[in-house]
Amino acid sequence: MDCDCDFLLPSRDSWEGHYGNCSSIWCKEHDEPAKNKDGTIRLRNRHLVALECDVLYHLGLDTKSNDLQTMFGDVKFVCMGGTKKRMKDFAEYIANVLQLPNEGLVNITKNSHRYAMYKVGPVLSVNHGMGVPSMTILLQEIIKMLFYAKAKDPIFFRIGTCGGLKIPAGSVVISSWALNGTMEKSYNLPIMGEVHKLPSFFDKRLNQELHFLASEETGFETFIAGTMAADDFYQGQARLDGPFCDYSEADKMSFLNQLFDIGVRNIEMEATAFAALTSQAGIRAADVCVTFLDRLKGDQVTSSKSKLVELQERPMVLVGKYISRYYVTKLK
Amino acid sequence: MDCDCDFLLPSRDSWEGHYGNCSSIWCKEHDEPAKNKDGTIRLRNRHLVALECDVLYHLGLDTKSNDLQTMFGDVKFVCMGGTKKRMKDFAEYIANVLQLPNEGLVNITKNSHRYAMYKVGPVLSVNHGMGVPSMTILLQEIIKMLFYAKAKDPIFFRIGTCGGLKIPAGSVVISSWALNGTMEKSYNLPIMGEVHKLPSFFDKRLNQELHFLASEETGFETFIAGTMAADDFYQGQARLDGPFCDYSEADKMSFLNQLFDIGVRNIEMEATAFAALTSQAGIRAADVCVTFLDRLKGDQVTSSKSKLVELQERPMVLVGKYISRYYVTKLK
Repeated sequence: MDCDCDFLLPSRDSWEGHYGNCSSIWCKEHDEPAKNKDGTIRLRNRHLVALECDVLYHLGLDTKSNDLQTMFGDVKFVCMGGTKKRMKDFAEYIANVLQLPNEGLVNITKNSHRYAMYKVGPVLSVNHGMGVPSMTILLQEIIKMLFYAKAKDPIFFRIGTCGGLKIPAGSVVISSWALNGTMEKSYNLPIMGEVHKLPSFFDKRLNQELHFLASEETGFETFIAGTMAADDFYQGQARLDGPFCDYSEADKMSFLNQLFDIGVRNIEMEATAFAALTSQAGIRAADVCVTFLDRLKGDQVTSSKSKLVELQERPMVLVGKYISRYYVTKLK
Repeated sequence: MDCDCDFLLPSRDSWEGHYGNCSSIWCKEHDEPAKNKDGTIRLRNRHLVALECDVLYHLGLDTKSNDLQTMFGDVKFVCMGGTKKRMKDFAEYIANVLQLPNEGLVNITKNSHRYAMYKVGPVLSVNHGMGVPSMTILLQEIIKMLFYAKAKDPIFFRIGTCGGLKIPAGSVVISSWALNGTMEKSYNLPIMGEVHKLPSFFDKRLNQELHFLASEETGFETFIAGTMAADDFYQGQARLDGPFCDYSEADKMSFLNQLFDIGVRNIEMEATAFAALTSQAGIRAADVCVTFLDRLKGDQVTSSKSKLVELQERPMVLVGKYISRYYVTKLK
């Protein structure tokens, strides 16, 4: 049961319709809206109510020492990316875009030594490290944190870097779905010895809205396409330049062409679980990545540091535009 | 063809025998020693020779701009752990143990913003983040780095934190083998759509040597035992306190007891790939972790920060003793 209003880019009313009362994310398993009516997160884990205090260990926060509702109740956007540096840069960037003070930005999770998280108005900017397990530790603790904070209708973005397939380096890919290493559109999570396959599809409408904003940008192209999420940077992505490799360049090219043919345009290391777990929590999410190279032309990231920093800004610009549009039309 | 000398704790000669000419790590696949005769790393990837320059992207180093042999040719030990903070602490600790200067420690990989790596005499101390993919990116680039550096007989340690099974919090576990999420003793790596199962066993002799040194410690017990490496911190470790959970406490207890019965004493998130890839490269390695809690008694890490910092020192002390014994008998 999808919402059928034809919203594409917000007027105040349509935002209201989409992110307020309209239940366009439906839980198929339970045949009911995935979120509560007021937009707060609904978590289906009956064990949580029994906890007197919930320690969000890797964030260095807990429900007893920290007033999470006061700290995070107003969060509307969570932006995640690999490095601490990039997410501090994004916090400064979005403060500038929203004309909010950016001085004295504090790493809220400093005590844990695991991640770095900054808050700028309604935006959280937080790093998740590399690979699915590092990302899901962060993601699950952020979901619990916003559940306790009673945040309403938060939208999650991942702004990443990746390898591209037959598209120019510097292109941006918005993931429509994510493929795992065994070519399935799912996040395969072993629970007590049994593999659970959680579907890994992203929110179509959010992707279209981002793509519309991207169409205003010149200088690079933005694609909505499939993404492969690998659990390894070298052999797991058919690279030839890792310490171990017993296949040929022809094998590699054949595999990358096969990925291209089924609609994959980029390879990164988090999309499957990011799609699956946000979707399980009834949270709209988008994965927006810039390509550093065309994998059909090579394996190594050889561009200069300054060039890579410049490219990394592209997902930030798109997500920044989305947030500022929302901020201007709804929050201000 | 295992080496059959009965070395247990080094005299100068026995170290020489073990880490010099004796080929006690044998490549079963190719039926030949896994390393070169002079102890340098042998990599079976014929594509590497074709590279004019190899960019170790996540280390911010390359074979053209950096003289890796001068920088790292003398490395004998690589110590890895989760956080940048812990590995900086370890660098300072080992400098103190070896009576080497610890002032002006420089993060050699600072430019990449991904990891932090410090060098103290023959010891590299470097963080790998959390989870297998983050760890293997680092591990594979370090293996290539030491290959180019022509480092001889390097030994790798992981010093980590974990949950224990029916052993007191604060116990140390030295992993004899690692179990993946589907209960196999292997690191399952999908390469071009096909899962490759790489055996995940650690070096028996190195474990015994560490265990002997541990026997001198009072105040905590050290076990050589099986380790489960999970790809998720919550459901993947049968926790009840994640955002999602549809099993009961009885299910959880039954699973943890099953793990105990087959010899598992701790759960962390890296051991399978750490065992498998070091072994593939003919590198001796050990995974030494301290337990923060007994998972049969709970899921949450509730000890005070200062207590956890104190416990974290235990693997450092054991590995520090091993390195100092080697340093005193062989290098000085």
